[in-house]
Amino acid sequence: MLDLGEDAFGQKLWAAYTGEEVFEIVERDDGYIDAMRIKGYFADYEDWSPIEQKAMDFVKGRVLDIGCGAGRHSLYLQKKGLDVLGIDISPLAIKVCISRGLKKVRVMSIEEINFEQDSFDTILMMGNNFGLFGSFKKAKKLLKRFHEMTSENAIIIASTRDPYKTDNPAHLAYHKLNKKRGRMAGQVRIRSRFKKYVGRWFDYLMVSKEEIEKILEGTGLKIKKFIESKDSNYIAIIEKA
Amino acid sequence: MLDLGEDAFGQKLWAAYTGEEVFEIVERDDGYIDAMRIKGYFADYEDWSPIEQKAMDFVKGRVLDIGCGAGRHSLYLQKKGLDVLGIDISPLAIKVCISRGLKKVRVMSIEEINFEQDSFDTILMMGNNFGLFGSFKKAKKLLKRFHEMTSENAIIIASTRDPYKTDNPAHLAYHKLNKKRGRMAGQVRIRSRFKKYVGRWFDYLMVSKEEIEKILEGTGLKIKKFIESKDSNYIAIIEKA
Repeated sequence: MLDLGEDAFGQKLWAAYTGEEVFEIVERDDGYIDAMRIKGYFADYEDWSPIEQKAMDFVKGRVLDIGCGAGRHSLYLQKKGLDVLGIDISPLAIKVCISRGLKKVRVMSIEEINFEQDSFDTILMMGNNFGLFGSFKKAKKLLKRFHEMTSENAIIIASTRDPYKTDNPAHLAYHKLNKKRGRMAGQVRIRSRFKKYVGRWFDYLMVSKEEIEKILEGTGLKIKKFIESKDSNYIAIIEKA
Repeated sequence: MLDLGEDAFGQKLWAAYTGEEVFEIVERDDGYIDAMRIKGYFADYEDWSPIEQKAMDFVKGRVLDIGCGAGRHSLYLQKKGLDVLGIDISPLAIKVCISRGLKKVRVMSIEEINFEQDSFDTILMMGNNFGLFGSFKKAKKLLKRFHEMTSENAIIIASTRDPYKTDNPAHLAYHKLNKKRGRMAGQVRIRSRFKKYVGRWFDYLMVSKEEIEKILEGTGLKIKKFIESKDSNYIAIIEKA
């Protein structure tokens, strides 16, 4: 399990939950660094992006929310009466979820996910959490596992960002670097920073629609629909083939 | 002169000026990292803190604004008809000032300041810019120089933060580390980060009132008044002894 000293992401969420003004700082392995507001993790349905709101129409039955963060989607769905399990690798994120009233939670990384057949009707990967698949190979492997764990008409709802929709020269150079080292262009190696807390490096995978289709080949899953926005963000609604 | 690639601070200001949503990321040499909104650098008088507003009552005549940033104080004073020279080590900060209409500007570090006798009636060091003195010794040396450069009734207005007014364990540990290596507790070694831009490390000096008084000894200058806030920020109004 993640050591609390390494749980920079959870420390941020907990600080924000307890009233500090916190910004999310993310460092990429080429030295690129960025910060953003953390309050989005606590946003209510009314303040979500239109594509996130629309994605909720596809949720049904027993829900697994992967990388649930501060629990904004899980809490919304729990309130609607759905049976939701929120999981996150961050112990402090889960502490925030519990404090906010989420009933079913587990500290669990995406690699550790291994539920028995027909455990869920919906798998939720919001807030760019398609990225948690990490790589082409791991995505295929985990999607096959998700296929087994879910009911016949199950839906996987995964949000991502098309990495090619950018003109930031630093990002374009990073795509090149990635290809050179045999990685997908949008496979960013990042870590979370907060005060003196330094998160572990991990791979976060941004993919185009064509790339998602390729990943789905041979998994028994296919695209049902893409929910698209005006910018690079979009959500894939995935169903059994 | 600062290379544009090293001018992380100026790159941030320029990006913010040209409409990007930008956060200021500052890294300390113990690994502590923090982010904050950058829009404060562009705030109008109405949105300044009460102590900054009050400090403006002491400004008169020919003004040197040291570390003028995006020019918020210089522009305010220029509009009031004062003769203001804004200087900053950052070429891009100065570019922002020019674009915003500041007439007299120079790219210049605090160490390079060397004007002839009786050049200014007010020296302005707002936004914690007492910090630019960097160390006890350099502060004394530069204050003596400022004494020479200014008119008989000149005023130096310097804003800082009492470093001892904190209960953040990381900051308290840093004070100890600093004393161990022969530095003042509030002498923070920091650098600016933005995208792939990495600023140079530099010393920024936070001082208590007692420490300011000690720094002023032998410089021919003395405290006229402290403008105090409810938190750790305060402004020293300094006059000739």
